[in-house]
Amino acid sequence: MGRSNQALEQLAVGIDIGGTGTKFGIVDRVGNLLFSGKLSTKKHATPETFIEELYSSLSPFIEQAGGVGRIKGIGVGAPNGNFYKNTIEYAANLNWKGIIPMGEMIETKFKLPVVLTNDANAAAIGEMMYGAAKDMQDFIMITLGTGVGSGIVANGRLVYGHDGFAGELGHTIIIPDGRYHEGTGKRGSLESYASATGVRLTALEFLQKTDTPSSLKNIPAEEIDSKAVYEAAMNGDELAKEIFEFTGKILGMALANSVMFSSPEAIILFGGLTKAGDFILKPTREYMEANLVQVFQNKVKILVSHLKESDAAILGASALVWEMK
Amino acid sequence: MGRSNQALEQLAVGIDIGGTGTKFGIVDRVGNLLFSGKLSTKKHATPETFIEELYSSLSPFIEQAGGVGRIKGIGVGAPNGNFYKNTIEYAANLNWKGIIPMGEMIETKFKLPVVLTNDANAAAIGEMMYGAAKDMQDFIMITLGTGVGSGIVANGRLVYGHDGFAGELGHTIIIPDGRYHEGTGKRGSLESYASATGVRLTALEFLQKTDTPSSLKNIPAEEIDSKAVYEAAMNGDELAKEIFEFTGKILGMALANSVMFSSPEAIILFGGLTKAGDFILKPTREYMEANLVQVFQNKVKILVSHLKESDAAILGASALVWEMK
Repeated sequence: MGRSNQALEQLAVGIDIGGTGTKFGIVDRVGNLLFSGKLSTKKHATPETFIEELYSSLSPFIEQAGGVGRIKGIGVGAPNGNFYKNTIEYAANLNWKGIIPMGEMIETKFKLPVVLTNDANAAAIGEMMYGAAKDMQDFIMITLGTGVGSGIVANGRLVYGHDGFAGELGHTIIIPDGRYHEGTGKRGSLESYASATGVRLTALEFLQKTDTPSSLKNIPAEEIDSKAVYEAAMNGDELAKEIFEFTGKILGMALANSVMFSSPEAIILFGGLTKAGDFILKPTREYMEANLVQVFQNKVKILVSHLKESDAAILGASALVWEMK
Repeated sequence: MGRSNQALEQLAVGIDIGGTGTKFGIVDRVGNLLFSGKLSTKKHATPETFIEELYSSLSPFIEQAGGVGRIKGIGVGAPNGNFYKNTIEYAANLNWKGIIPMGEMIETKFKLPVVLTNDANAAAIGEMMYGAAKDMQDFIMITLGTGVGSGIVANGRLVYGHDGFAGELGHTIIIPDGRYHEGTGKRGSLESYASATGVRLTALEFLQKTDTPSSLKNIPAEEIDSKAVYEAAMNGDELAKEIFEFTGKILGMALANSVMFSSPEAIILFGGLTKAGDFILKPTREYMEANLVQVFQNKVKILVSHLKESDAAILGASALVWEMK
């Protein structure tokens, strides 16, 4: 490596592996996203072909950024990512089943050190370094997307748990014997209600059992999604508002339970569902407060991440690299 | 202070304030309880008269142990105890309402530094120093007594939360719109089911709605308590067993949620209800596993504290002193 490269600031690669797509980027120490790109996760039946496409998409950018010598490492956020073992294990939303040594595979291919954790943990670190949680010692990050993920920071450190899997708030049971979750086979989990998937299912249920007129009745069932419900709510549709009210009620109860457990300064929400704004945030705050015992009331901020959504996951993953030993 | 005293090993005072009684003791660095005593909490309408009696009961032991010069400090475990402010705030199970500056009051009276936290946090530190959680970095301590308390250790440190109140697992909602809790006015909390009080209420409910013959029907309603249910279960009473099964089902669900949130190596149970042994532990384990998603299954130990119950709370409170700055 030449002297000129050594004098240049080091960079980090961030990769966010989602069930549908994977995003990557090259990020500097203060959180500027210098290069970014994406590829499909879903189309790859095996992790091996995925790694091949990731390499051919990402390595040209690494060259442009000054070559591997300038990169300190690669940070990866992935569903069911294990921080201690650099693996992805039994991820319900991925095609690849069982235990995938994803960290090792990327390390071998790119010849760079890799650190991997679950996507919501990566997002939590991103918020702590660049976002709404700057200077906070105790907060919870919750991602409300296709699924629900979470990352917990206590005493200024991410809680990985004894095995590296902490933070699966989405799978906690909020309604015993409640809605069935296809991915896990469990009933009544937060994710089965307070995700984009959950909002769609609530909409279908409400449409079936109600006589309330609703513009959603004009939409074919297969096209009903959280975006359609949001648009209906924006146009004053009462049923659409009730759908978010119901979702916020369940989310608020889950947040109250998290608050009474770990007493965070703030809960930071991130992901597609937050776009519904006060339709979901208002009932969420209200039901959270209603379920809190007195010592916790009117103290905990519910914040929406202000990181640009398309970048935040990459920023979070890259931020892992700066924490590397 | 004489040289001989300085050469002697330092000691710590541990005080465990409960809703009914308060226990105290003088403990050495390795957890030997050298002196101990108790007084009633309940009979004191104000914290001032409580402090007076505490002083007149405890100070003779301090003299016997070598005087205040030998005592490093006083550790206090109390319901709703706040580690940051040394206060007891809005404790549902105490006569004293509002915010009590208990730490400061004890400090002024005894002229010794005081550290205070909630009773379950104190118990968690006791387990970490002397008990079942030795060498664990991530575990949850749950006390199943008149109420339900909890202390969470993550990354080797107690989680106090941003305001010092973390660890109120007993107040988390397990059954939405479930059983009313007199102390908090909330419905469906873990404490309303999985405490000694909860077992009594479950017994009364089950007795009212069932035709199953049960020896519990021969006991006057006001005498039904968790001990009576345990004794009936020991004698083979099916209804008594069902009461514990139901309690374990709810506790197991709450434990599953805690595990998916913070992924501890073990959950350590402590307090009166653990005396019911497998009547409650078996369903608790079973329903915990049933509610866990795959990555968490068959990993987490449910242990019963092996510290002598009458001493453990004092040991835990005294252990806080060794952590003092």
